Amino acid sequence: MNSFGKKLTMTTFGESHGKAIGCILDGVPAGLKIDESYIQSELDRRKPGKSKLETGRKEDDKVEILSGVFEGISTGTPIAMVIYNTNQKSRDYGNIKDLFRPGHADFSYWNKYGIRDYRGGGRSSARETATRVAAGAIAKLLLSRVGVSIQSGLCEVDGIKAEQIDFEYAKSSKLYALDPNKEKDQEKAILSAKSKHDSVGGVVLTTATGTPIGLGEPLYYKLDAILAEAMMGINAAKAVEIGDGTSSTHLKGSQNNDPITVGGFSSNHAGGTLGGISNGDTIVVKTHFKPTPSIFQEQDTITKDNTEVKCNLKGRHDPCVAIRGSIVCEAMMALVLADMLLLNLGKKIEHIEKIYG
Amino acid sequence: MNSFGKKLTMTTFGESHGKAIGCILDGVPAGLKIDESYIQSELDRRKPGKSKLETGRKEDDKVEILSGVFEGISTGTPIAMVIYNTNQKSRDYGNIKDLFRPGHADFSYWNKYGIRDYRGGGRSSARETATRVAAGAIAKLLLSRVGVSIQSGLCEVDGIKAEQIDFEYAKSSKLYALDPNKEKDQEKAILSAKSKHDSVGGVVLTTATGTPIGLGEPLYYKLDAILAEAMMGINAAKAVEIGDGTSSTHLKGSQNNDPITVGGFSSNHAGGTLGGISNGDTIVVKTHFKPTPSIFQEQDTITKDNTEVKCNLKGRHDPCVAIRGSIVCEAMMALVLADMLLLNLGKKIEHIEKIYG
Amino acid sequence: MNSFGKKLTMTTFGESHGKAIGCILDGVPAGLKIDESYIQSELDRRKPGKSKLETGRKEDDKVEILSGVFEGISTGTPIAMVIYNTNQKSRDYGNIKDLFRPGHADFSYWNKYGIRDYRGGGRSSARETATRVAAGAIAKLLLSRVGVSIQSGLCEVDGIKAEQIDFEYAKSSKLYALDPNKEKDQEKAILSAKSKHDSVGGVVLTTATGTPIGLGEPLYYKLDAILAEAMMGINAAKAVEIGDGTSSTHLKGSQNNDPITVGGFSSNHAGGTLGGISNGDTIVVKTHFKPTPSIFQEQDTITKDNTEVKCNLKGRHDPCVAIRGSIVCEAMMALVLADMLLLNLGKKIEHIEKIYG
Amino acid sequence: MNSFGKKLTMTTFGESHGKAIGCILDGVPAGLKIDESYIQSELDRRKPGKSKLETGRKEDDKVEILSGVFEGISTGTPIAMVIYNTNQKSRDYGNIKDLFRPGHADFSYWNKYGIRDYRGGGRSSARETATRVAAGAIAKLLLSRVGVSIQSGLCEVDGIKAEQIDFEYAKSSKLYALDPNKEKDQEKAILSAKSKHDSVGGVVLTTATGTPIGLGEPLYYKLDAILAEAMMGINAAKAVEIGDGTSSTHLKGSQNNDPITVGGFSSNHAGGTLGGISNGDTIVVKTHFKPTPSIFQEQDTITKDNTEVKCNLKGRHDPCVAIRGSIVCEAMMALVLADMLLLNLGKKIEHIEKIYG
Repeated sequence: MNSFGKKLTMTTFGESHGKAIGCILDGVPAGLKIDESYIQSELDRRKPGKSKLETGRKEDDKVEILSGVFEGISTGTPIAMVIYNTNQKSRDYGNIKDLFRPGHADFSYWNKYGIRDYRGGGRSSARETATRVAAGAIAKLLLSRVGVSIQSGLCEVDGIKAEQIDFEYAKSSKLYALDPNKEKDQEKAILSAKSKHDSVGGVVLTTATGTPIGLGEPLYYKLDAILAEAMMGINAAKAVEIGDGTSSTHLKGSQNNDPITVGGFSSNHAGGTLGGISNGDTIVVKTHFKPTPSIFQEQDTITKDNTEVKCNLKGRHDPCVAIRGSIVCEAMMALVLADMLLLNLGKKIEHIEKIYG
Repeated sequence: MNSFGKKLTMTTFGESHGKAIGCILDGVPAGLKIDESYIQSELDRRKPGKSKLETGRKEDDKVEILSGVFEGISTGTPIAMVIYNTNQKSRDYGNIKDLFRPGHADFSYWNKYGIRDYRGGGRSSARETATRVAAGAIAKLLLSRVGVSIQSGLCEVDGIKAEQIDFEYAKSSKLYALDPNKEKDQEKAILSAKSKHDSVGGVVLTTATGTPIGLGEPLYYKLDAILAEAMMGINAAKAVEIGDGTSSTHLKGSQNNDPITVGGFSSNHAGGTLGGISNGDTIVVKTHFKPTPSIFQEQDTITKDNTEVKCNLKGRHDPCVAIRGSIVCEAMMALVLADMLLLNLGKKIEHIEKIYG
Repeated sequence: MNSFGKKLTMTTFGESHGKAIGCILDGVPAGLKIDESYIQSELDRRKPGKSKLETGRKEDDKVEILSGVFEGISTGTPIAMVIYNTNQKSRDYGNIKDLFRPGHADFSYWNKYGIRDYRGGGRSSARETATRVAAGAIAKLLLSRVGVSIQSGLCEVDGIKAEQIDFEYAKSSKLYALDPNKEKDQEKAILSAKSKHDSVGGVVLTTATGTPIGLGEPLYYKLDAILAEAMMGINAAKAVEIGDGTSSTHLKGSQNNDPITVGGFSSNHAGGTLGGISNGDTIVVKTHFKPTPSIFQEQDTITKDNTEVKCNLKGRHDPCVAIRGSIVCEAMMALVLADMLLLNLGKKIEHIEKIYG
Repeated sequence: MNSFGKKLTMTTFGESHGKAIGCILDGVPAGLKIDESYIQSELDRRKPGKSKLETGRKEDDKVEILSGVFEGISTGTPIAMVIYNTNQKSRDYGNIKDLFRPGHADFSYWNKYGIRDYRGGGRSSARETATRVAAGAIAKLLLSRVGVSIQSGLCEVDGIKAEQIDFEYAKSSKLYALDPNKEKDQEKAILSAKSKHDSVGGVVLTTATGTPIGLGEPLYYKLDAILAEAMMGINAAKAVEIGDGTSSTHLKGSQNNDPITVGGFSSNHAGGTLGGISNGDTIVVKTHFKPTPSIFQEQDTITKDNTEVKCNLKGRHDPCVAIRGSIVCEAMMALVLADMLLLNLGKKIEHIEKIYG
C-alpha cells in the first residue's frame, strides 16, 4: 500500500514531522552507475524555500544511501535511502491538533485509522514526495541508458495558460514556467493570492522522449493508465490527461487519429500511447493541481469530537503546489517508464533467447 | 498484467474473434447472493446493437458462471465467467491483416509482441470490456450490502455539454444522456458524424453514493489514483477528472476547499476524496473518451513491412464509444470500490477484535 | 489467492463437481509454439483411472484453449484453458453433506467460509491440479527453449525406499516408480492397503536439469523457498526437501559444502541452489505426501451442528495420492522455473542493453 | 523481491557490512501499542556473541523506529526500522574478495548480478535476519491481541534428537534446546565440531497455539505452503515439515487422519492445518538447517576468473546456525500468521456487515 511499481518497486515511509522519511527502491538492475550527487541535485530542485513563491519552511533534504550500492555501482539489491527531518517546527501545528483542516486529509485519515499524527499532515504531507524524487532520480539514470529523457514545467497557473512550450527555459524559471511570456503574469497571480492569504492551482506538463516502442502491459497495467495512477496519486492532483486529453473529445475521429508514415506518426494527438502501449512518439501527460488547501483565511470545520469551529492555520505553505509538483511529476513518470522497461523484458520469445541463448 | 484489483481481483482473457472471452473474479466474500440474471442484465446494458447510435455488430453476450457459486450463493472460491463469441465475422477484417489502423493498438501490439491476432483488434478490442461489466455486476451486488450505489451517464458528446444531471433519465436514454434537453442535439451530432463515416468523442460522468468514509489506501493505492487508473485503462479514454478536476485549478484555495460542518461537507469540489481516502461524500469521476478510431474514411498508414498504404476500413463500429463506455465506467468504479472496501478491513485494531474477538 | 507466479501467473478456478475447472496463464512470451496435443498428453499422465492403483473415477480431462494462441503460436495475451467436468457422480457425496471428513479440508473450509460445496471436496479437491498440469505443460514448452528438462517419480511408497533412480523407467511405470527393483513391493503395499480400505503415503523426487545459473530472487522469492511453497501447496503434501534436505543436518559443514571446480560442483548436496539462486547444477526436490485421507473405514467425526457421528465414506479414491502427485510436482516445478526465468530478465544492466540497445 | 507478506508486508534492505540494515513493515493496523523495548528484547535473543556456541562477532543490533508510530501507538502508516552496522571488520573478508566460498551464495550472486559486495556475504548474510526479527516482534504484538502465541527451540543438533519438548526450558538454554536431557550432548557436538574448525546442522521446532480457525488462503496462499516458503527462505534451511511431515508418509490413512470430536481433534498429525487452512489446533513446523557453510578448513573452489584455488576462511562464524535460526523461525511464523489474520478479513459477508454495518 506504500509501494509503487511492479518490477522496479519503490516503498516509502515517513511522516513530515517524524524522525525521517525515506524509501527502498527494489529491482534496480545490477551494474548501474549511481551518482549520489545527481540524486541530491534532483532533490534540490524540489526542496522548499528556493523563492518566495514557495513555502518558507526550509529543509536540507540531504539524502543518504544505506544499501544496494557498492563502490558507486548498483548491486541488484534494494537501495535504501533516508532523509532525516531537520526542521520540524511542530509547535506550528499545535492549534490544529484536534480539528480537521478543510481540503486536507485530516478528516479521512482520522476516520480511517482512529488515530492521526497531527504534526503537519504526518504521512499525508507532500514532504513524502521528496522520497519519490530520490527514487525517480535513479529511475532516470536507468532510463538514460536507453536514451529516454524526461522534462516538465508549468503550462498553466491560476488559469493563465502557456502558449509556447520551452522546457529549457522552465529549468531555470523560479516557477518552472514553460512560457517565458506568461511567466511574469503567472508569478504575479501567485504572489497576489499569497498576499491575500490564499492559494492558486496550476497544471504541469510532463513529457518523455526517446521511449522505446512497446512499453506498457495490456490490459490492466497499461502505460497510460499507470501514468494516470502515478500522477493522480501526487498530493493535490485532481485530473490527468494523456496526449490531447480532454480536448480530444472535441475532435472527430478523422481529426484525432494520428496518421502513420514510414517516418513515424504525422501528429501526436495520442500522446505517445496506443492501446496503452508506447508507440515511440513523445509521451505527453498533463497533471492538474488544485490550489494549496493550506490557506491563512478563517475556515469552517469541525473537531474530532464533532464540534463546529473556525480553523485558523499558521505556519508556512506553498501558495501554488504545482510548482514543486512539477519535479514530482518527472519522478513519477521516470518510475513508471523504468518499471515498464523492465516489465517488457520477456514479452517476446526472442528476449529469452537473447539473454539465455 | 491482465488482472485488476488487490483483494477483489478480476483476471480477464479473450480476443474479440477468438472462441470466448471471460474472467475470473477472486476474493468475493462467501455468502453473497449471486443473481445470474442481474449479471446478464448488466451485460445487456453494454451489449452492442441496441440502437443505430451503436455498432451494428450483434453479440448475445450470454454469460455463464463456471465456478464459485453454489446453490446461488458465493462460496469464497474464484468465480469464473465465460462469454462465448458467437458473431465472429472475421472476413470483415481480412483487409487489415497486414496494416496498422490509425488510432488503434495494432502498431504498438505488433512492435511489442511481433505477432498479432488481427481479427478485429484481438485482445485490444473493446469487446473485452464485457467481462469487466460481468465482474462489475458482482462488485455492485457486494457494494449494495453496505448501501453503495453507482450511476453514470454522458455529460458531454462532441462538445455538447449537459447542463443538468439526471441519472434516472440517463437509464432509459439510448445514449445514456444525463441532460434530457441536450439529448437530441447530442444524438444528432453522433448521427451526423456517422453519416460522414466519422466519429465523435464524449465524456462520461460516474458517481457513487453511500460510500463509507475511509476507503482508499495511502500512499500508492489511493482511491482517486486507482479510479484514475481504472478509467484511463478503458479503451479510448484520454483524461480522468476527480471532483471538479480541471476546473479546480481555476479556483482559489478559499473557493476550492470544502468547509466541514457537523452535517457533512458544505460543498463537494473534492469529489468525495481527501488525501486519496473517501470522505463519505459522493464520489465524482469524469472520463473523457476520444472519438472512435475506427472510421470509414481513407487514412494514411503503413504495413508490417513498412510500406505506406491507404487504410480503408470496413465493418461495423460505434460512432461514439463513450455511450457503451458509460456502462464500463460503472463496472470499473464498482470493482475499485469493492476492492477498497475489502482492503480497508484490518486498518484499525478494532476490526481485528470485532472479527476474532 | 488463486494465482501462482509473479511474471508467469497461473490463476485457476473450479470445483470438482461444478461445471468446469480451468485456468488463465498470463505472461507467456509471444512467439512460443503451443502444441495443444502436448498439453493433452501431460493431462493424460495425471488423469485418474489408468490402473487399479488409482481411483476408479474416470475423467476425460479434455482441455480446450479459449484464448491467447493464434494459429498455433502464443500471442502474449492470457492463455485461458478449460476442462469441463463430465463425470460428476454427485450422489456419491450425499452422505457427507453435513459432516466433516477426517483429514480433509471440510472442517477448515466450513469454518472459514460458512458455506461449502460438499460435492467431492469442491474447490479443495485434487481435481483442481489438472489445471496446474495444463499450465505446467506450457511452462515446460517455454523451458525447453533454453534446455531445461524436468522429470519426476516415486522414490518411496509406504516406507519402501528406492535405492536407485531411473527417471526413464518411471515414465512407463504404473506408479511412476523410480526403482525397478522396488516397484513390485511398492505396488503390493498400495494394493494391500487398498484391500483393507486404507491408504499409504509416498515421496516424489522431482529434478530439473539444464537450469541456467542465476534463477531465483533474493531475499523473499528465492528459488528454493518458492519451490517449497509450490510443492507444499499440492494437496496432501506435508514436507519438502531441497537437495540433501533433512539428511544435510546430519553432515558436518566440511562434508556438506559442495567443492567448486572449473568443471562445476564436485557434489550436489545443495540440490542446485545457493543462497536461493540456481547454481547451474541439477535442481533436486523431494515432496512427501501423506496417505490419502479418503479411506473406507469407519471414522470419528462431527457434523456442522457439532454432533459426533461416524463417517463412512463411499466413492472412489486413490489409495496413494503420491502417484498422480508426481505429475503435479513436475508441473509446479516447471511453473516456478519458467517464472524465475522471466523474472531474472533485467537483473543486470546488460540485459537492458541487449534488448533495447 | 525483497518483500514478504501480502497484507502485512515486510520489505528489507541492507548488507552485512554496509551502513545499515533495516525494514519497512507496512499494513500494521492503527491503534496497536508498539513497545520498542520488546522489539529490542527480541533482537537481543537473536544477536550474536551471547555464548561460545555462537560467532564471536559482536553486534549491538540496536533498533530505531523511524516512522509509523506516534506516542507509542501504530498509526497505520509504514513502520520503518533501522539497525546501523557498528562492527564491520571488513578486513576479515579481504582474502575472499575474488573467490567463491563453497556452500555460500557467492557463486550464484556473482553469476546472477555480475557484481558482488564481497564483504561478509553482503546481502546474502544471515545478518539480514535481524530485520525479520524486528518485524516479527511487531507481528507477535498483533497476534497477542487474539491470543496467538509462538514458541520455538532446537529439537535436533548434529543428529542428536530431542525426546521431550520443553519450550519453557528452551527459553533459557544457550542453544535453545528443547530437551534438557539432550542439551549437554548437543552442546558437546557443537563445540567438538567447532574445535575441528567444522560445523553442524540442526532442526528447529516452531509452534503456534491459539490460532483462530480459518487462516490461510486457498489455493495458492495456503497457510502450510507459505510457512514452507517462509522457513525455507531462511539462510541455510534445507527442509520444512508440517505436522508429522516426513513421518506421515510412513503411516496408513487410518493412522494419520486426525479424528474430530466435539472437544476438538483427538490427535494432531496434521500440524494444525487442513487443506492449507488452520484448523484451530497447534501449528507445528520443523525447519532443518544445514551445517554452517563457513568452516575453517581448506576447501576447493574457483575464483571469479575461473581458476581453481584453495579457500581458507578467516573470521568468526556460528558453528551451528540453527541456534539463532530458531529466533528467526519464530519471527517468520509470526509474520505469516499475522498476514493471514489480516487476509482472512472479508472472506465472509458477515465480516463486511460487522465492520461497515
